[in-house]
Amino acid sequence: MILKLNTSIDEKEASKLAEKHKAFHINYQESQHLITSSSVKEVPDSLKGKVDKHWVFDNDMQLASREFQAETRTIKIGDLTIGGNTKNTILIGGPCSVESLDQIQESARLIKSQGLTTLRGGCYKPRTSPYSFQGLGLEGLKLLAQMREEHGLKVITEVRDATHVDEVIEHSDIIQIGAKAMYDQGILRACAKINKPVLLKRGFGTTLQEFVQAAEFILSGGNHQVILCERGIRTFETKTRFTLDLCGVAYLQEHTNLPIILDPSHALGYRYGIEKLAKACVAMGIDGLLIEAHPDPSVAKSDAAQQLTHEQFIELKSAISPVAASVGYKIV
Amino acid sequence: MILKLNTSIDEKEASKLAEKHKAFHINYQESQHLITSSSVKEVPDSLKGKVDKHWVFDNDMQLASREFQAETRTIKIGDLTIGGNTKNTILIGGPCSVESLDQIQESARLIKSQGLTTLRGGCYKPRTSPYSFQGLGLEGLKLLAQMREEHGLKVITEVRDATHVDEVIEHSDIIQIGAKAMYDQGILRACAKINKPVLLKRGFGTTLQEFVQAAEFILSGGNHQVILCERGIRTFETKTRFTLDLCGVAYLQEHTNLPIILDPSHALGYRYGIEKLAKACVAMGIDGLLIEAHPDPSVAKSDAAQQLTHEQFIELKSAISPVAASVGYKIV
Amino acid sequence: MILKLNTSIDEKEASKLAEKHKAFHINYQESQHLITSSSVKEVPDSLKGKVDKHWVFDNDMQLASREFQAETRTIKIGDLTIGGNTKNTILIGGPCSVESLDQIQESARLIKSQGLTTLRGGCYKPRTSPYSFQGLGLEGLKLLAQMREEHGLKVITEVRDATHVDEVIEHSDIIQIGAKAMYDQGILRACAKINKPVLLKRGFGTTLQEFVQAAEFILSGGNHQVILCERGIRTFETKTRFTLDLCGVAYLQEHTNLPIILDPSHALGYRYGIEKLAKACVAMGIDGLLIEAHPDPSVAKSDAAQQLTHEQFIELKSAISPVAASVGYKIV
Amino acid sequence: MILKLNTSIDEKEASKLAEKHKAFHINYQESQHLITSSSVKEVPDSLKGKVDKHWVFDNDMQLASREFQAETRTIKIGDLTIGGNTKNTILIGGPCSVESLDQIQESARLIKSQGLTTLRGGCYKPRTSPYSFQGLGLEGLKLLAQMREEHGLKVITEVRDATHVDEVIEHSDIIQIGAKAMYDQGILRACAKINKPVLLKRGFGTTLQEFVQAAEFILSGGNHQVILCERGIRTFETKTRFTLDLCGVAYLQEHTNLPIILDPSHALGYRYGIEKLAKACVAMGIDGLLIEAHPDPSVAKSDAAQQLTHEQFIELKSAISPVAASVGYKIV
Repeated sequence: MILKLNTSIDEKEASKLAEKHKAFHINYQESQHLITSSSVKEVPDSLKGKVDKHWVFDNDMQLASREFQAETRTIKIGDLTIGGNTKNTILIGGPCSVESLDQIQESARLIKSQGLTTLRGGCYKPRTSPYSFQGLGLEGLKLLAQMREEHGLKVITEVRDATHVDEVIEHSDIIQIGAKAMYDQGILRACAKINKPVLLKRGFGTTLQEFVQAAEFILSGGNHQVILCERGIRTFETKTRFTLDLCGVAYLQEHTNLPIILDPSHALGYRYGIEKLAKACVAMGIDGLLIEAHPDPSVAKSDAAQQLTHEQFIELKSAISPVAASVGYKIV
Repeated sequence: MILKLNTSIDEKEASKLAEKHKAFHINYQESQHLITSSSVKEVPDSLKGKVDKHWVFDNDMQLASREFQAETRTIKIGDLTIGGNTKNTILIGGPCSVESLDQIQESARLIKSQGLTTLRGGCYKPRTSPYSFQGLGLEGLKLLAQMREEHGLKVITEVRDATHVDEVIEHSDIIQIGAKAMYDQGILRACAKINKPVLLKRGFGTTLQEFVQAAEFILSGGNHQVILCERGIRTFETKTRFTLDLCGVAYLQEHTNLPIILDPSHALGYRYGIEKLAKACVAMGIDGLLIEAHPDPSVAKSDAAQQLTHEQFIELKSAISPVAASVGYKIV
Repeated sequence: MILKLNTSIDEKEASKLAEKHKAFHINYQESQHLITSSSVKEVPDSLKGKVDKHWVFDNDMQLASREFQAETRTIKIGDLTIGGNTKNTILIGGPCSVESLDQIQESARLIKSQGLTTLRGGCYKPRTSPYSFQGLGLEGLKLLAQMREEHGLKVITEVRDATHVDEVIEHSDIIQIGAKAMYDQGILRACAKINKPVLLKRGFGTTLQEFVQAAEFILSGGNHQVILCERGIRTFETKTRFTLDLCGVAYLQEHTNLPIILDPSHALGYRYGIEKLAKACVAMGIDGLLIEAHPDPSVAKSDAAQQLTHEQFIELKSAISPVAASVGYKIV
Repeated sequence: MILKLNTSIDEKEASKLAEKHKAFHINYQESQHLITSSSVKEVPDSLKGKVDKHWVFDNDMQLASREFQAETRTIKIGDLTIGGNTKNTILIGGPCSVESLDQIQESARLIKSQGLTTLRGGCYKPRTSPYSFQGLGLEGLKLLAQMREEHGLKVITEVRDATHVDEVIEHSDIIQIGAKAMYDQGILRACAKINKPVLLKRGFGTTLQEFVQAAEFILSGGNHQVILCERGIRTFETKTRFTLDLCGVAYLQEHTNLPIILDPSHALGYRYGIEKLAKACVAMGIDGLLIEAHPDPSVAKSDAAQQLTHEQFIELKSAISPVAASVGYKIV
């Protein structure tokens, strides 16, 4: 249950009430709200008279649900806004991993040259083998920060585990929580206390219900800026790396108020069909796309098969723009 | 291996050679071809001098592969053509089941009024329970045939099992082999001997490899007109009925020469997102869409939750048309 | 709903009532029963006074449910009985495919020498590629019949599609409906009208609910002897061929009255772990095991990797016997 | 590649060589070993003459593979040993969550009364919703430590994320890494540096390859005591909570040298079939079982449906003992 408290109740009192009722307490759109388990179906007696409005839910998708807030949330990425009624589809590009200054410079120039705003690049790689390239870590973060400085770009990078979440929060404009870290409460709780947008990727074995509930960890902690990212689920089909779940996207668009960014690169795992998939994604009227591109994919230290060349990235941008226009969106 | 025989070898001799080598024999684009297992990697000595060209394959996706024929096959549905370089996306609509003359009349009028050409409707329903509505059977087929007559429409309907495949072949313009019947060799072999287009649906537990190999049963028997239909695979996600596999579609478009029709209705299982999914499908540059619509979905005898109203169907058509245009296709 | 009619109502009258109420009618344990959809929750007025007992169900698992009949059904395979309170675990062995007289003779001798009763062997192979070995067909059936004659064995073989279901029914003692044919109503309805045991395999993409409902097609048609066979489902894991679903077996044992035979050979797909898996299966207290064995697996025309040698089969039998004993069962 | 260095090379020199070759360095069975990526197929020139023996691998399952070490590793849990040639199947019991002193006291008494050695109980619960019971945290750890003290039991508890991994390491005898935390390198790397056994659960969307590679993170860091735990994977089947993958267990037993403990409670998710599944597990000749039991499951704060009563736990122990005996193992 979500309870919107009377305006007569200030933040301090709300906080006390939350503690008393073992509820979460957030300040949302300048009103105090308490959030309890969805198993609570009636306003507790001790809160009667203190509640302006309340919402009852079937399950723990509460703050994220369109029942609580009908319009899609607005996310501010510096001076760029997505979600809400902006009809913006942000195209975020860059390499799988930050590998060197030269490489990330080329990537930054690509993004800039295309009139885009946000550069991606992994620093702490959640590799499944200890014997693979593990990313440049803090050094990579600093290279990204340098790109931000030099090119006026926003940067997004992934936090792998809770041991370095503070570093990532400090150095990036959007915090990416990867598919393998999605249940990590060390990360979720740290991201709940900050003011920056968080891009939460769906785990490849994660149900839509669990996915949205992971977002609730962040929302109920007071960070209202969560973006969902579908990047493919694991199915029996192995000709492609994963299976992009656009039925799931339709579900999320219908039932949640969270903006959605799609990642066709990781879903397909091969360069050849990324452009077509990107068109499909954009046609659904989504808030953004994550596309991996590398100055020279053949020498990439991770995900070599799925990263586009820069030429292909430019081509993709020009191919998806008319599709976005056909559904009333524009690529930014 | 596929072997294209010399022009000096006529159909009769080719047939003898096929028998001798336990190969399939087809007449394709006015040339005699033999097809053996892909495990054959070299032209047999006894065929040397008789072969114009041959293709070696890694696996049993042979006639369907772009290595054998680079361009997408052309399919003739009466005077309408899809595939090839037509850039046509056929929109096929109609109810899940043919239920009565009145109902199918309204459906036929809808299709006609929208300038469309092809009406769908199930007669032999592959229900998973014996206690559900099983379809009108032959009576339904006759109603469809009546619609064809009265409205000049083409009709497509599903064959459930081999016991009535001949009836379906007789009465419909496109033979639909459903997801649950996809491995049925009684059906596949019957469809291999005819001259009508066959729409082969992917089983919900079927790999892409098996799916294309099922098409090979038809192609190697001499029917060149096979259309693949992706309609959602079964995954761990249950908020939606199935998971539409557009990564798989990207794979099939890249590797096979078979036209592709998508069925978002069965994939999602709910009316609310069909239009958005349909846009995503169309943006990939596909050969067709199957959309379920019912004059009054609330009384439908099967799949009530996913059938669009006729108003929604009209809306969908108008919503997908600009998307098709944005990728150079048109809805027919 | 299942309705057990008064003893005053004879078969003929029951049949008329069934027709009138669009219900199935069976003679079960010498009583007339009608079966309607599970959506019927109350005895229709027109049947009041004619019903001895009735059962209401949540879903269409009706005749197969333990609510209708608490004890596991008894299946007669000639003079051998499984299910009921027999505590028999039948071990059925033999090759994937019947390939030649010599081969099947050796197989028959193996079964006989081990004091076993039932020989398996595929004649109509449901291969996924047209370019693979398709089985000996009718010729294979005749070889099996010859083995039955010569060795006094029972035989089980698979029906691939409805075009030859009558042949298989004629020549085998247990009719096997394979995983890919499980939804085939041409087969299910044919098997509903006979008096022989039917072994129904679960499709690899089939839910437990659909699996039991497929059995209901046979049961509601009047054949009471259905055995369920779990043989592995398709999951994201590809190191093994399929994933044997013993959680599903626990579910079926708890909720249905149908005997259960397990097929670890197809599930794992590799010889190395068949014996361990067979022990696991037997420890659950099951009604039977299907194990593939071949006189020389290295030359087998299908499923070469998973067929045991005859030595391994003998070893397996001796390894599972004490496990069966430890749960109160015996291998027969 | 794994390289076993000459005995002439001491730990210090080995460490230098490791750094130079960007390899892992461990002291295993009193010999210095270097481990590189499996993509290295030949001993580097600069190491020639310094290597006693080396192993080349197809993939990054290296230290865990039976090619490197044929016998199953031995794990010491205090004075109890599992794995190796002990033929011990450890039965670990206790509640899903530590809820109170009274509750965990009863659980400890149960374990003790059954002659068992190890008590389980969750303190940091990896719940998927922020609105569910999250566990007692450090307070719970202290209750477990108290049980160890009072009853002479070993305790196992789960680490949820890297923020409290040190606390869990300090207070428990076996560190459990749960299914949702399995890719967490913050946890894996912390567990690589300790000397206590680690029970690593397979993620429900995790391939066997990735599962073993997660173990390699711990093994390559120098902790040789890793136990694998299969607890069910997520499939399309939803009648049961997960699908216990015993085919996968057969694979792991064949290919890896790591002991295996199975968790049928989480796999099935319902009390009714736990005993039967436990028998199946034990029949495979495994190293242990994790079974959830609660003094009063009806009031349990998590996983209420799957926890056994104490009576059922006692019954289970007595039911699995003869099965273990039938395969030459004993329950400890």
